Amino acid sequence: MHKEGLGEIEAYFDRLWPINRSIAGPGVRKTHAILSELVPLTSIEVPSGTVCFDWTVPEEWIVHEAYVIDPGGRRILDVAENNLHLVSHSIPFQGRLSREDLDKHLHSLPDKPSAIPYLISPYAPYWGFCLSHEQRCELPPGYYEVTVNTELIQGSMTISEAVLEGDESEEVLISSNTCHPALANNELCGPIMAAFLYRRLASLPRRRLTYRFVFLPETIGSIAYLCLRGEHLKSHMIAGYIVTCVGDPAPFVYKRSRNGRTLADRAAEHVLTRSRESRPFAIRDFHPLGSDERQYCSPGFDLPVGSIMRSMYGTYEEYHTSLDNRDFIKFEAIQESIDVYFDVCQILEQNVTYRNTIMFGEPQLGKRGLYPGLGGRTHLPGEIEAMMWVLSLSDEHHDLLAMSQRSGTDMELLNRAATRLLEAGVLERVKS
Amino acid sequence: MHKEGLGEIEAYFDRLWPINRSIAGPGVRKTHAILSELVPLTSIEVPSGTVCFDWTVPEEWIVHEAYVIDPGGRRILDVAENNLHLVSHSIPFQGRLSREDLDKHLHSLPDKPSAIPYLISPYAPYWGFCLSHEQRCELPPGYYEVTVNTELIQGSMTISEAVLEGDESEEVLISSNTCHPALANNELCGPIMAAFLYRRLASLPRRRLTYRFVFLPETIGSIAYLCLRGEHLKSHMIAGYIVTCVGDPAPFVYKRSRNGRTLADRAAEHVLTRSRESRPFAIRDFHPLGSDERQYCSPGFDLPVGSIMRSMYGTYEEYHTSLDNRDFIKFEAIQESIDVYFDVCQILEQNVTYRNTIMFGEPQLGKRGLYPGLGGRTHLPGEIEAMMWVLSLSDEHHDLLAMSQRSGTDMELLNRAATRLLEAGVLERVKS
Amino acid sequence: MHKEGLGEIEAYFDRLWPINRSIAGPGVRKTHAILSELVPLTSIEVPSGTVCFDWTVPEEWIVHEAYVIDPGGRRILDVAENNLHLVSHSIPFQGRLSREDLDKHLHSLPDKPSAIPYLISPYAPYWGFCLSHEQRCELPPGYYEVTVNTELIQGSMTISEAVLEGDESEEVLISSNTCHPALANNELCGPIMAAFLYRRLASLPRRRLTYRFVFLPETIGSIAYLCLRGEHLKSHMIAGYIVTCVGDPAPFVYKRSRNGRTLADRAAEHVLTRSRESRPFAIRDFHPLGSDERQYCSPGFDLPVGSIMRSMYGTYEEYHTSLDNRDFIKFEAIQESIDVYFDVCQILEQNVTYRNTIMFGEPQLGKRGLYPGLGGRTHLPGEIEAMMWVLSLSDEHHDLLAMSQRSGTDMELLNRAATRLLEAGVLERVKS
Repeated sequence: MHKEGLGEIEAYFDRLWPINRSIAGPGVRKTHAILSELVPLTSIEVPSGTVCFDWTVPEEWIVHEAYVIDPGGRRILDVAENNLHLVSHSIPFQGRLSREDLDKHLHSLPDKPSAIPYLISPYAPYWGFCLSHEQRCELPPGYYEVTVNTELIQGSMTISEAVLEGDESEEVLISSNTCHPALANNELCGPIMAAFLYRRLASLPRRRLTYRFVFLPETIGSIAYLCLRGEHLKSHMIAGYIVTCVGDPAPFVYKRSRNGRTLADRAAEHVLTRSRESRPFAIRDFHPLGSDERQYCSPGFDLPVGSIMRSMYGTYEEYHTSLDNRDFIKFEAIQESIDVYFDVCQILEQNVTYRNTIMFGEPQLGKRGLYPGLGGRTHLPGEIEAMMWVLSLSDEHHDLLAMSQRSGTDMELLNRAATRLLEAGVLERVKS
Repeated sequence: MHKEGLGEIEAYFDRLWPINRSIAGPGVRKTHAILSELVPLTSIEVPSGTVCFDWTVPEEWIVHEAYVIDPGGRRILDVAENNLHLVSHSIPFQGRLSREDLDKHLHSLPDKPSAIPYLISPYAPYWGFCLSHEQRCELPPGYYEVTVNTELIQGSMTISEAVLEGDESEEVLISSNTCHPALANNELCGPIMAAFLYRRLASLPRRRLTYRFVFLPETIGSIAYLCLRGEHLKSHMIAGYIVTCVGDPAPFVYKRSRNGRTLADRAAEHVLTRSRESRPFAIRDFHPLGSDERQYCSPGFDLPVGSIMRSMYGTYEEYHTSLDNRDFIKFEAIQESIDVYFDVCQILEQNVTYRNTIMFGEPQLGKRGLYPGLGGRTHLPGEIEAMMWVLSLSDEHHDLLAMSQRSGTDMELLNRAATRLLEAGVLERVKS
Repeated sequence: MHKEGLGEIEAYFDRLWPINRSIAGPGVRKTHAILSELVPLTSIEVPSGTVCFDWTVPEEWIVHEAYVIDPGGRRILDVAENNLHLVSHSIPFQGRLSREDLDKHLHSLPDKPSAIPYLISPYAPYWGFCLSHEQRCELPPGYYEVTVNTELIQGSMTISEAVLEGDESEEVLISSNTCHPALANNELCGPIMAAFLYRRLASLPRRRLTYRFVFLPETIGSIAYLCLRGEHLKSHMIAGYIVTCVGDPAPFVYKRSRNGRTLADRAAEHVLTRSRESRPFAIRDFHPLGSDERQYCSPGFDLPVGSIMRSMYGTYEEYHTSLDNRDFIKFEAIQESIDVYFDVCQILEQNVTYRNTIMFGEPQLGKRGLYPGLGGRTHLPGEIEAMMWVLSLSDEHHDLLAMSQRSGTDMELLNRAATRLLEAGVLERVKS
């Protein structure tokens, strides 16, 4: 398995950080091009104006330059310095405004005076600048020269995907967002983590399941993707996760799918539960605010999509401000997040349903060399019991996760037992 | 909304208290005539001898006078003084009895020496007097002149109903008893409370649901009513309540329907739960002793009927004695009981099921003016979240009560959100 | 009812203890012959080599003599002295072995130095001796004369059964093992207890249910029995129990059936729960190691079979060693185990399903003499309430056990109420 180094994660983070991403535009394409080094992405360009269910794909946004010249002649609020300074999807504007008139286009957070907020206006024509409240308070009276040199063109919105095929056509979805500019936990860490997870899975000698990785802008991106792939996902997807807020070192939070008892939920909760002593975690029931699970779990789809996060969106102080930056995250935390997602994938790989081929009475394990005789016990501790559990519950109604839950037996032990029983012919796979 | 004053409640109580009610007879008719001032009752006269399922309607009972002349010539146990003195449905008798022979027809409670018990004998021919145990102990030896001047005639049993029509044909049943003579908590407060509840509901500008109010004698009355209206109730009734024991200031008790998870249960428990800090309450599972829920919930009907009470029948010292009188109850408590029942009706009014008309992905609220843009937030706190919950759960499987329970969101907030979404066309009603 | 005396239990124990039982052979037949004094057994001889599902019936094992002569000429490890000394189903052997070579055929338990282990090898040809680790450590160097004078013949495996017929064809299975040699709690107490339980049940004037008692060797015995009777059991059996480990005075343990909510589970848990204050007990969920519930509950059968035990197999120090002997058990404990099993049978006898013949409204109990009038109360306390519960829940969906659980009412009281209502014609039996 190809495990990423901390330095690699850091290097990708630093290359991707300065790019000015938005819902649609060159920043997204540049970001996907860099991620393609890790995950072989195919891009889908959805033209501006395309109707997707109840939504319409917005115009593409190109930023040439944007800044303000203050009464003292200083260039301030320059998007080149911090891409949060410009409200995302700001329309072009050039003009001279008084301090008072400029103020109508400024956004700051009085209760977080040092933070620049992150704001977007993709559907309502508007221009504006974001700045720290401290800076705003010090803007002198007088006239300001405003330059918003942007273009909104009939271009396209970029969605990229990579399908890592396995032996079977059942799919696991990994979805992350590439529309956020200079924000770290939410969201640059998400697509980076997803890309490295892809590389780990791709390096395995074989996979039972197929993995579908998607990188797209939040909300309109997943809605457009569902427009294209929704029917396919409904018939192939067994579990999916939104990779978001995975970069800071806070304890894990698992947000359940809308259904709440899907395979996505069972696998994630299994992995988090079994390591609960070293890694405390919390479970959150589904709620309809959040990230793209809002779309995947909309009632018409109701897909099995949850999200394993660290500090959840909306719950931490730095969220959607310039404080959600390189200092807020830890590269070790990203690596640990990859570990957890990888473990979840391993559980999904193992989680098959079997049928006991004997069914009536126990199979005689002794005659197949699977039961210890008097001559010596070569079996691992617990292995006999694990075989007995697998045989007892292989009635087509329990998958391996259900067996693990009911028996309190480790999933790997059950999987090893099942493999031996399968080889001995007393078990057979049941396809769902 | 026409809210009753305390004085009004008191006035009706005092007018109704002296009337000698029984299962069938003029007392019931007089009572219904007075209640008709508040609720436009239509009476059904069920002839004596009518067979209703396993029961037969008893004869009508008319009391002319009933008393005893003691050896000292004093008139005692006069029904005109306290209508509990005469066992209800006593047959006529005139005669001179020794202290010993009289005693066979006397009923008192040694463990509640100051209380006159309430007894009835509608199906077995009998006459008797009830008195306090203190009085009984002081009856001197000698001969007593007994006068029980009553009639049992082939008349009819009176049931009265009022149907308050709403926009829809789904019905809420409010059922109370008018067969009890001078007893306050159980039961004169019940029909009074029901009548005022009717007036409040009738004064609303509109109602979605239809309300059926019935005033009838306990047991045989509801059995006869089910004989007449059982099939209609089975197909139209969505929730019902027995209004009994609503007059004393003890904490509320909700007794569940036999099914235990009907809409009647969910609505009553919702209202009591959300005000639990100011009003403690208790939940009791269904049990087959009690009031007319015994009939409505009999296995052949199994209707969604529960009961919101204060001190429950059989659990308070004063129950079925002369101590359950004006001193035991409080008019403020009756008013609070009306408030709770009215709130339950309001919840039922709001509790509809919707379907999200978009279903696939979220509706774009912004283009409909339902989502705050950058220009200012005119929405109430929580309203966006409430809209999101309604959209997420409007899958035809959740009514608004289920949404409130799952989301922890206030019912009114959900209802307001649903109304806006309905107006915006992204929601539609689902009829059950 | 014919209740056994402690002396009787003791006498049977002492007669049965010395017999050298094994999976198949004369010891089993001798054991069944003695048990036939209590329970009229019919034997089924299943020929060696018979294929039963995945298993084959082993050869019959006859032990003529088996012992070792040590270098000092002393006869040791004599099976005649303790039948645990010889590994069960040892093949014949005669020879002179050095201390070292003999040691390869010796079995002891270093961590329980005074205990002789119990070992069997019915499917792999082998001979061996079991001894205490203390004795093993003191075996002097030198040469040993080994005599294993046994025969493995194409005979048959003995299963015995007795069917105690009741009024109905629904069956309760009582299954116990007669393959263990000198072991007391597991297992000589089991078949003894079962036999006395039979005698108690047979002495009852009548039984509603049919009881099937089987005495058979563990695992292959129950597998062969299921081969013969499995289809019959699937269609007739309503509850079954493995009688094992019932002889020591430890608190009761109930191990649930694989399904976990069968009638077997409900009845056993009911009996244990209602006497929990005098008899603490524990509930164990099904697990696939254990006794013949492994076979009865195999997924193809999934029969309603649990087990009421004292110290459960595998959980006590003395298990499967010479320490599980007469000193470990108590005859009073066996008697108490019979009591509990008998009570469970009584609950099963009473546990019928009724239908209220009135269904709509309550039946009028008064006109049938079942409701107290004013003239006096001849009913037992709680009887009215029990009748009301039975009427309310006799909707074909509740058996009497379910009514008892829901109402918190004693099963005997419900049964008596049901009997009166049945006689009065307001209840009728529902056959499942």
